[in-house]
Amino acid sequence: MKDTTTIFGIRAVIEAIQNDETIDKIFIQKGLSGQLFQELQQKMKAGDYNISYVPVEKLNRLVKGNHQGIVAKISPVEFADLETVVENALQDSTSPLFLLLDQVDDVRNFGAIIRSAECTGVNGIIIPKKGAAPVTADTVKTSAGAIFKIPLIKVDHIKDAIYYMQASGIKVVAATEKTDDLLYAVDLAQPTALVMGNEGKGISDSVLKLVDAKAKLPMQGTIGSLNVSVACGAFLYEVVRQRLK
Amino acid sequence: MKDTTTIFGIRAVIEAIQNDETIDKIFIQKGLSGQLFQELQQKMKAGDYNISYVPVEKLNRLVKGNHQGIVAKISPVEFADLETVVENALQDSTSPLFLLLDQVDDVRNFGAIIRSAECTGVNGIIIPKKGAAPVTADTVKTSAGAIFKIPLIKVDHIKDAIYYMQASGIKVVAATEKTDDLLYAVDLAQPTALVMGNEGKGISDSVLKLVDAKAKLPMQGTIGSLNVSVACGAFLYEVVRQRLK
Repeated sequence: MKDTTTIFGIRAVIEAIQNDETIDKIFIQKGLSGQLFQELQQKMKAGDYNISYVPVEKLNRLVKGNHQGIVAKISPVEFADLETVVENALQDSTSPLFLLLDQVDDVRNFGAIIRSAECTGVNGIIIPKKGAAPVTADTVKTSAGAIFKIPLIKVDHIKDAIYYMQASGIKVVAATEKTDDLLYAVDLAQPTALVMGNEGKGISDSVLKLVDAKAKLPMQGTIGSLNVSVACGAFLYEVVRQRLK
Repeated sequence: MKDTTTIFGIRAVIEAIQNDETIDKIFIQKGLSGQLFQELQQKMKAGDYNISYVPVEKLNRLVKGNHQGIVAKISPVEFADLETVVENALQDSTSPLFLLLDQVDDVRNFGAIIRSAECTGVNGIIIPKKGAAPVTADTVKTSAGAIFKIPLIKVDHIKDAIYYMQASGIKVVAATEKTDDLLYAVDLAQPTALVMGNEGKGISDSVLKLVDAKAKLPMQGTIGSLNVSVACGAFLYEVVRQRLK
């Protein structure tokens, strides 16, 4: 296990890119220029990095050293490859189960979801490159270490993963209130990829259009919405229950 | 809605006790003495307060003013009475549902559990006076406001609530790994009180001895334990599912 690492300075980040480190996010000072920075920009073009242009004050808060306008967060986990994980799962299991997180952005929710996924036999968790909660020390802690036991996959967009799942014969089911179907009425025993949405906004409409089925948890009371990690756990355990039969 | 309030100074705390404020916790400086403090001690004897004897540094961190060795946290919610809540639930519903939290001590877990309980029609949440997570601003926030919609009950000990539930014809079911019975095999459609345990230690043995049934969630993978608010949500939704039939 590696800890979450913060690196800074232009050369250090170039080095990390060259070494194929799993860079979670790159913070760049607004208006940064210079020859070495241009070299970094060239390197960054090759990959699809999560880049944030920020005021210098933000960088000063992130690190104490001379950051030269560049700070990067290195993820403590290695990310896996979608095709490999799906292929292996289809070979190893008659009913693989995947989890697609459409912009879950709270690190503690993310960690709790990873933990639940490991306890319910999920074959892989797919997150988008941008907009997802980063893998921080808090994520690792909240996951109770599950983050090192289950493949995490980053895709450019959740839609890419949905197309790939569907092409592989995996049913994509969205957990959303925008349906009349309770999850108990949806067949989750077949190969399934479950989509969970953002804490506030839910699953984006463009993603909802693509799914094969929508399912909701019954709601009593007046609040009408659950914590996303709780909702995810309830969905995953319904999958488990249906597969026990 | 009241915010969580911190009060300090001996007279202020005496005043709060006299006004029947819902005091969550009283911090007292170790070795405190004096006539006014003796007066406070007399007042405290009348109720069963959650008291913590702490070094002066702790009090200095809690408040900036002249605390005179005494700081108290006033709960933002009113607590309800066990007998009244159970009686009303038995009158209003053929299958009331209660939640007993045996020392859940993380405020965010506590908040998420309250939120799930409101969404699943729980009639009341019972917590012990000592050792439970306090009702803080974080609890209120994580509960998404559900804390103001569902009766919260404090009892001297969870055992007292179990005896009362059983005497009222309510089946007490413990969520615990210390059983071979999966929750799907346990009848949760009848009047039920579900017991959830502490994040680290689970349900205490003395409580486990008293329950009518034990039930566990199936576990795959190697981590073998869920976040308590996720586990609680999965249990509550199994209750909901069984009652839909």
